[in-house]
Amino acid sequence: MVILPKPGCTDEQLQEILRLLDSLGYSAHISRGVERTVIGAVGAPDSDRSAAIERLESLPQVERVVPVLKPYKLVSRDFQPQNTVVRVGDIAIGDGSLTVMAGPCTVESRDQLLQTARAVKEAGAKILRGGAYKPSTSPYSFQGLGKEGLELLSEARAETGLPVITEVLDPRDVEVVCEHADILQIGARNMTNFSLLKEVGSTRKPVMLKRGMSATIEEWLHAAEYIATRGNTQILLCERGIRTFETATRNTFDINAIPAVQQLSHLPVVADPSHGTGRRSLVGPVARAAVAAGADAVIVEVHPEPSKALKDGAQSLTFEGFRVMMEELKCIASALGRCM
Amino acid sequence: MVILPKPGCTDEQLQEILRLLDSLGYSAHISRGVERTVIGAVGAPDSDRSAAIERLESLPQVERVVPVLKPYKLVSRDFQPQNTVVRVGDIAIGDGSLTVMAGPCTVESRDQLLQTARAVKEAGAKILRGGAYKPSTSPYSFQGLGKEGLELLSEARAETGLPVITEVLDPRDVEVVCEHADILQIGARNMTNFSLLKEVGSTRKPVMLKRGMSATIEEWLHAAEYIATRGNTQILLCERGIRTFETATRNTFDINAIPAVQQLSHLPVVADPSHGTGRRSLVGPVARAAVAAGADAVIVEVHPEPSKALKDGAQSLTFEGFRVMMEELKCIASALGRCM
Amino acid sequence: MVILPKPGCTDEQLQEILRLLDSLGYSAHISRGVERTVIGAVGAPDSDRSAAIERLESLPQVERVVPVLKPYKLVSRDFQPQNTVVRVGDIAIGDGSLTVMAGPCTVESRDQLLQTARAVKEAGAKILRGGAYKPSTSPYSFQGLGKEGLELLSEARAETGLPVITEVLDPRDVEVVCEHADILQIGARNMTNFSLLKEVGSTRKPVMLKRGMSATIEEWLHAAEYIATRGNTQILLCERGIRTFETATRNTFDINAIPAVQQLSHLPVVADPSHGTGRRSLVGPVARAAVAAGADAVIVEVHPEPSKALKDGAQSLTFEGFRVMMEELKCIASALGRCM
Amino acid sequence: MVILPKPGCTDEQLQEILRLLDSLGYSAHISRGVERTVIGAVGAPDSDRSAAIERLESLPQVERVVPVLKPYKLVSRDFQPQNTVVRVGDIAIGDGSLTVMAGPCTVESRDQLLQTARAVKEAGAKILRGGAYKPSTSPYSFQGLGKEGLELLSEARAETGLPVITEVLDPRDVEVVCEHADILQIGARNMTNFSLLKEVGSTRKPVMLKRGMSATIEEWLHAAEYIATRGNTQILLCERGIRTFETATRNTFDINAIPAVQQLSHLPVVADPSHGTGRRSLVGPVARAAVAAGADAVIVEVHPEPSKALKDGAQSLTFEGFRVMMEELKCIASALGRCM
Repeated sequence: MVILPKPGCTDEQLQEILRLLDSLGYSAHISRGVERTVIGAVGAPDSDRSAAIERLESLPQVERVVPVLKPYKLVSRDFQPQNTVVRVGDIAIGDGSLTVMAGPCTVESRDQLLQTARAVKEAGAKILRGGAYKPSTSPYSFQGLGKEGLELLSEARAETGLPVITEVLDPRDVEVVCEHADILQIGARNMTNFSLLKEVGSTRKPVMLKRGMSATIEEWLHAAEYIATRGNTQILLCERGIRTFETATRNTFDINAIPAVQQLSHLPVVADPSHGTGRRSLVGPVARAAVAAGADAVIVEVHPEPSKALKDGAQSLTFEGFRVMMEELKCIASALGRCM
Repeated sequence: MVILPKPGCTDEQLQEILRLLDSLGYSAHISRGVERTVIGAVGAPDSDRSAAIERLESLPQVERVVPVLKPYKLVSRDFQPQNTVVRVGDIAIGDGSLTVMAGPCTVESRDQLLQTARAVKEAGAKILRGGAYKPSTSPYSFQGLGKEGLELLSEARAETGLPVITEVLDPRDVEVVCEHADILQIGARNMTNFSLLKEVGSTRKPVMLKRGMSATIEEWLHAAEYIATRGNTQILLCERGIRTFETATRNTFDINAIPAVQQLSHLPVVADPSHGTGRRSLVGPVARAAVAAGADAVIVEVHPEPSKALKDGAQSLTFEGFRVMMEELKCIASALGRCM
Repeated sequence: MVILPKPGCTDEQLQEILRLLDSLGYSAHISRGVERTVIGAVGAPDSDRSAAIERLESLPQVERVVPVLKPYKLVSRDFQPQNTVVRVGDIAIGDGSLTVMAGPCTVESRDQLLQTARAVKEAGAKILRGGAYKPSTSPYSFQGLGKEGLELLSEARAETGLPVITEVLDPRDVEVVCEHADILQIGARNMTNFSLLKEVGSTRKPVMLKRGMSATIEEWLHAAEYIATRGNTQILLCERGIRTFETATRNTFDINAIPAVQQLSHLPVVADPSHGTGRRSLVGPVARAAVAAGADAVIVEVHPEPSKALKDGAQSLTFEGFRVMMEELKCIASALGRCM
Repeated sequence: MVILPKPGCTDEQLQEILRLLDSLGYSAHISRGVERTVIGAVGAPDSDRSAAIERLESLPQVERVVPVLKPYKLVSRDFQPQNTVVRVGDIAIGDGSLTVMAGPCTVESRDQLLQTARAVKEAGAKILRGGAYKPSTSPYSFQGLGKEGLELLSEARAETGLPVITEVLDPRDVEVVCEHADILQIGARNMTNFSLLKEVGSTRKPVMLKRGMSATIEEWLHAAEYIATRGNTQILLCERGIRTFETATRNTFDINAIPAVQQLSHLPVVADPSHGTGRRSLVGPVARAAVAAGADAVIVEVHPEPSKALKDGAQSLTFEGFRVMMEELKCIASALGRCM
C-alpha cells in the first residue's frame, strides 16, 4: 500500500507511521519529493490489510492510504483467470452462450405461473423466475405467497422442465427455499445483509447476487466474496440498475458495469433490464444492449396480463412482447457468434 | 390519486382506466384540458392504494399516476401531530432536549469499553454506544466480539449507569441482543432487511433506524412503518449520511433531512456525524450543525486511541476531542433554549 | 396541472388558491376525497405555465403542483411525431442508418490529425471529430490550439472529404467555429450555458448537444428547446455518461436514456462511449450496446498513439482498436437491419 | 505521484513506464511487493503534472495513477495558510465574523427591490442580492430585466448603502455588470463555463463562485483556481446544495463541504440555504446549521410577497421569516463567539 502523510508531517510523526507499519508486519520505503513525502509499504502475504489501512488512516498525520491489492480475492480474475461456468442441469452460464431467465415478478396463482412458464419456455427461455418471498418497500404491499409460492414453482418445473430461480429474504428461509429452487436469488436490498450472504454461501446451490442500489462494483464483489469464502463459488452477478438523480426511469441500468466486472472477476454476469429501467417500453432495447455488451444471461419479468399483476406490472412484458424481444436477442447473439 | 393518460389516449382506453378504477373501489372524475385529460380518483379509506397504483401504471395508455396520500401512516405527522418521545430510563428523546450517545465503533476489549464509557459519561454523554455484531464490507474484516461484546456492554452499563445502544444484524440475534441492549440499532445496510425490521418491531425495545445509504426520506419512513405496524412505535430515525458523487468525505451528511423528516413524521431524529463525514476533523462542525438544525440527539464514535481502533479509527474522536465537541454543543443548545 | 393542498388547508386558503388560478387564466375543478382535496386546473393554451407553477408552489398551503403538460414543446414527439433527420452533406442522421464519428479528443498537430482522419475514414467513419477549443477542469491543462486547430480541421476535411464536428465554448467564438465546422458541439459542461445555446440556436449549422453531467433527460430536452426556439432544429442529442457514485468508470453511460429520449423527442441520439466510460477497454462493448439500444450515431475518440495524447489518452482507441470496433458495430447494425 | 502497473505487467512494460517518466522529467523508484509492484515518481517543481498523469494512464499496462500533490495551487491552504479576507467597502468576509446577504431571487420592479432592500437592511443584512440576468432551465421562463435590473440595483445601493451582489451569465456582460455590482456571482450552472471564469478573473471585483450541481469539492477549487490564475483572488466559495437521488428537497445541502473546503482552501465560504433546500420551511434550520458548521456568510432569498414572485417563491422568505432567521443566527453566532 502507499501512505501519503499530510504536508507538514514532522520527522517524528513520520517515524510513528513507520513504527506502526513495522508492528503490523509491513516493510516500508520512503520517497521524498520536493513538496511531498510518500511511503510505500509491503506486507506479509497473510497480513490483515483492511485493518492495517483502518489504523493508518486513523493517524492524524496521514492524509490518505492507497491500497494496491484488490480487497477481494476468490472472485477476482487475478486469482482465477478463466471464466467460472455456473451449471444448472444442462444449462451452462458463463461459457460464451446466452441464457434467458423469465417469469412473473411474483407468483400469484397456479394458473398465472403455469401459463407464463409455458409461454416463456416456448419463446426460448431456459430458466423460470418467480418470487415467493417478496421484499416490499411498504409494509402494506403484498409480501408474496411464501411456501405456497415455492410449491407452485416446483410444480411449474415438474411440468415444463425449466429450472427455477427465486429470491430468499431471510436466513431462516434458506433451507426451505433450497428444497424448491435451482438458483437462489439475493435481491438488491439484501446485498449487504451479511447474515444472509453467509447462509447462502454455506449451501451448494448457485446464487444470483443482485447489485445493491447504491453499491459500487467493488462492494458488489466484496459481497460475492462473502459467499465464496463460505465455499460456494457458483455465483452469478446480476446488474439491475443503480440509483442516480435521474427520475425518468426507475433505476439507471449501468451498462458499463457489464464489461467492467467481467474484467475484474471471473464470475458470469446477468442483466436485469426489467428493474434496470422500470418501464416495459425500455426493456427490449436495454436487453439488446446488455447482450451486445457481453452479458452472459438476461432475466426479465413476464406476465399474462400486466395490468392485473400484483407487482411490477409496469415493467412486465406481455407474452407477445417477450417473443419479440427473444427474436431480437437471437439476432444479436448470432451476429456476435454466441448461441442461445 | 391523479391519473395522467398518455396524449392520444382514445375514449375506449379512457373507459378501460375508469373500469379498472371502479373495480378497485375508486370513484373517478375526468378533467379535459385543451391538450391533456386528467383523471382524479378517490378511494375507500381501506383500499389498497399501492396495489391500485401498480395496476394503473401497468396500463399502456397511462403515462403517470400521482399519489395524493402519503404511503406511510403510523409514523406520519398527519396521523399523529404531536412529537413521539422515546424514553430509555430517565432519558427522554424528542421532548426538546438534546441527548448525546457516544462510545466506540466496536467493542474491542473490557478495558477499551469501560475506559471509553467512563470518559464519555464524564463529558456529558447520556447513552453508551458500542458494536458487538459488526457489518463489514469485507468478509476478511473483524466481525465483532458477538455475545462476549454484549456482555461487556452490560457490564459497562452496570458500572456507569449509562443505557446501551448496539446493533443487531440478524433476526436470529434479536432475542439475545434484547437481553443486553436498551436500544436496538438497525444499521444503514439493513434498512431494507424487512425480516429484521419485522423482528425488532415485535419487541418492546426502542429501535434506532439508520437511513439507508441511498434511501429517500420516503423510503426511510416506509422502513419505520414496518416497525410500527408490528406494534413498536418507540422509533428513533438516524441520519448518517447518504451516498453521492462526492468522494472527499465518506458520505454526504444530509442536513436538510433533519427538518424535512421532522415535518413529515412525529419521530425523534438522531444525527450521526461520525459516519456522516468519515473524518475526525469534520465530526465537530457537523455535530454542531445538526444540533442547530434541530436534531433531537447526536451519536458519535469515541475511542481511547483511535489509531489502535479495529474499525472507524479515522472518524473516531479522542476523549479530548469529544470533550471539546460537548462544550460546543452545550453552547449551541443553550443558545437555542434547549437543555442537554 | 394538478394542485395538492396541504392536509388541513382551510376553506379560505382553498379560495386563495382558486383566486390565484383565476388571475393566471386557469379554470379549476375541486375533488374532495375522504382525507385529501385535489384541484385540477386547465389553462389557456398560451398561459405561462412555468410561472404559474412557481407562484402556486409559493403558497404555504400548497404541498405540491403536478404539471400535466411537458415543459418543452418544439423538441417533443407530441409536437412532431416523425423523426427529425439531421443532414450534413450526404450524411443523414436519424433516418434509421448508423453513423460513426471519430477522431482525436484534441487537435494536437497537422500530422496527428491527418493521420487519424485517414485511418478513421478507411475504417468507415463518416464524420471527423477533433477539439480546437478544449474545456479543461484545470487551468494548467492544455486548452487546445484554438483557431489554428480549426484550420487544421478544415484542411483534414479538404483532404478526406469527411465533414467536421468540433466544440464551441464561448458565444464570441461561434462565428469563427461556424466557418470551419459542419456540426457545432456543445459540451456537457456547457449544457446550461444559456448564452451559448442561444447563440448556436441563431446559426443554421447542426448542433450536437451533449447531456450535462448531472442533467435529467427533461433538463437536456429543455436545453435543446433553447436552441430550437431560436430557429435551429437541426439538433443531435448526445448521451455521454452521467455522474453517479460509481468510481470504477469515469462516468456512468446511461443506456436507458437512448430509448427513453427517443420516445420523448423526435431528435436523433448520438452515443459517446469514450466519455461515457473513460476506459479504452470498455469503449467497444458500450458502443455495441448503444447501437443495439437504437442510437442513431456513435462518436469515439481515436489517437495514433494514445500514450502520447495530450488529453483523454486512456479512453482513446488505437487505429487497430477502432477497426475492430467498426467490424463489431457493422455486425450488430446489420443484424438489426440498419445500414452503416 | 504513484503509479500502479497492472498485475502481470512484464519487465519490458515496466521499462516503458520508466522511460515515459524519464522523458516527462520525473525520477522514479520501484517497490516490488509479493503480489504487486509500485512505482513512486517525483517530478521537477514546474513539470506539467496533469499532462503526465493523462499520458501515464493511457499506457495499457498501467492500472492507476495516484496523484500526490493537489491539482490546484493558488487557492489551497498548503500554498497560503492564513485565511483570505474578502473586503467589500467596510464589510470583511473571512475574518471570523458572520455576514448575511439577502434580497429577491430576481429584480422584478423598483418597488419590489427597494422594499426588500430596506427590510433586509433593517433586519441586519449587510449585502443586497438580486438577479438581473437569470439563468432559467426553460427558454419560456422569465430571463430577468437585464440592464434595467442592474440600474435598479444601483439605485437600491444608493438609497440603502448596501453593496450589491448579482449574477453574470455571459462573458460579454462582465463589463456592464462590473459597473453596477460590488460582487460578481457565478452561478452553479456556469461553474465550468471557463470563458466566463477567465473573464471575471480579469476584473478586480470580488467573485462569489457557486459550486456546480454535481461538482466535487476538488472541481470547485479547480474552478476557483481559474479565477485566481487571472490575478483575482478575492473569491468567495458558495455551497448551494448538490444533486443527489433525494427528491424531497430541491438539492442536498452539503454541510460537510463547509468545514472540508475550509481545511483545503483559505477562501471564505458562503452558504445558500435557499437553493440548498428549495423549501421555505427548511431555509431557517439549514442557515442555522451552516453558521454552526462555520460558514463565513449566508445568502438567502427574500420577497415581499413570495406567492407573487416570478421565480423561486417557494424558497423565498417573507420579511417576517427573514427577521426570525436573523434572530436565530445572531444567537448561534454569539454562542460561538462570532460577531454579526
